[in-house]
Amino acid sequence: MLRQSLNHLDIATRGRGFYDFTDSLQELVNEAKFQTGLATLHLQHTSASLLIQENADPEVRHDLERFFSRLVPDGDPLFQHTSEGEDDMPAHVRTALTCVNLSIPIAQGNLTLGTWQGIYLWEHRTEPHRRRVVVHLLGE
Amino acid sequence: MLRQSLNHLDIATRGRGFYDFTDSLQELVNEAKFQTGLATLHLQHTSASLLIQENADPEVRHDLERFFSRLVPDGDPLFQHTSEGEDDMPAHVRTALTCVNLSIPIAQGNLTLGTWQGIYLWEHRTEPHRRRVVVHLLGE
Amino acid sequence: MLRQSLNHLDIATRGRGFYDFTDSLQELVNEAKFQTGLATLHLQHTSASLLIQENADPEVRHDLERFFSRLVPDGDPLFQHTSEGEDDMPAHVRTALTCVNLSIPIAQGNLTLGTWQGIYLWEHRTEPHRRRVVVHLLGE
Repeated sequence: MLRQSLNHLDIATRGRGFYDFTDSLQELVNEAKFQTGLATLHLQHTSASLLIQENADPEVRHDLERFFSRLVPDGDPLFQHTSEGEDDMPAHVRTALTCVNLSIPIAQGNLTLGTWQGIYLWEHRTEPHRRRVVVHLLGE
Repeated sequence: MLRQSLNHLDIATRGRGFYDFTDSLQELVNEAKFQTGLATLHLQHTSASLLIQENADPEVRHDLERFFSRLVPDGDPLFQHTSEGEDDMPAHVRTALTCVNLSIPIAQGNLTLGTWQGIYLWEHRTEPHRRRVVVHLLGE
Repeated sequence: MLRQSLNHLDIATRGRGFYDFTDSLQELVNEAKFQTGLATLHLQHTSASLLIQENADPEVRHDLERFFSRLVPDGDPLFQHTSEGEDDMPAHVRTALTCVNLSIPIAQGNLTLGTWQGIYLWEHRTEPHRRRVVVHLLGE
């Protein structure tokens, strides 16, 4: 019979960059003892993202950061919302360009990630923040 | 026991901009009487988006609009699909750059949004449109 | 009573471009015999995307490809991760700018797509690849 389980993960960031929390999410799946199901993630913030990306060569994530820094430059004079710092509005734009939700099926007790996929919180602010990911698990 | 409920919300837009429908979605959750669960939204259009963004300073949304207007300019000579107007193809590109799905867990009868998160339909066309969001609720 | 069903679709791509798999997904829904429910898709790769876009005028998809090719040019000297080819890092960036998950409610046995919506795998690599989409179906 289908059951659900609601949890959250708190991630302390040390400023802009990628934070892999694949293992923490898999632990929640293990604790719920679901063999088959669905994990749905929601990030409760508007200046950070959830991203599934390559977990092999760290240069991929450096290049992602380089690209987004060029596409949405800090301190761009286009922006009027500047009271929270010159990285704040770019952080909102980066979040709009990416995702705050992820949905990953579970098979044989494991998240069905591809061989090279890791799950990241992408912090867009330059200062450290505490970020919360709500995790809904459905399964049996 | 887990139940599901299928609904939709119709949103009349007055042209390009952000339309907050957080309260309408929460009402659907209230009517379904789910304490714990998951709300999944699907927008049935290809020239508008669903976006979770800051609901405090309206300047944030103005800046998002300014950024996307500069990134994907109306009337860009790059585009060949121009028969529906010079804002049509940019609207498709903006939709591709954002999302048409959202998934938000429910806890204690409420959408688990962060303190500053609102749920918006982002209309990308300059003319008014009628937009439909399909809402699937799962819970107990 | 709610049930779930886990499946996958394998899609052979012939290089960069859009591959419509709406009908294959609808077939999985038909086989599961769900009248009402939710289909959740996860793509197990980091250099291709899942996209819902207009399925009427093919020029829309050509223009999407033109726009992304200009926004994230192959061989951009910004990128350091170049060992897998000059289209590899742009493929990761395109994936970050779009989505690898989709969630589509089911009503009266059908995916609740809009009139002009098709479901595409968007291959970002120039060489052919074999791509897997994991499909979780929930319903009754």
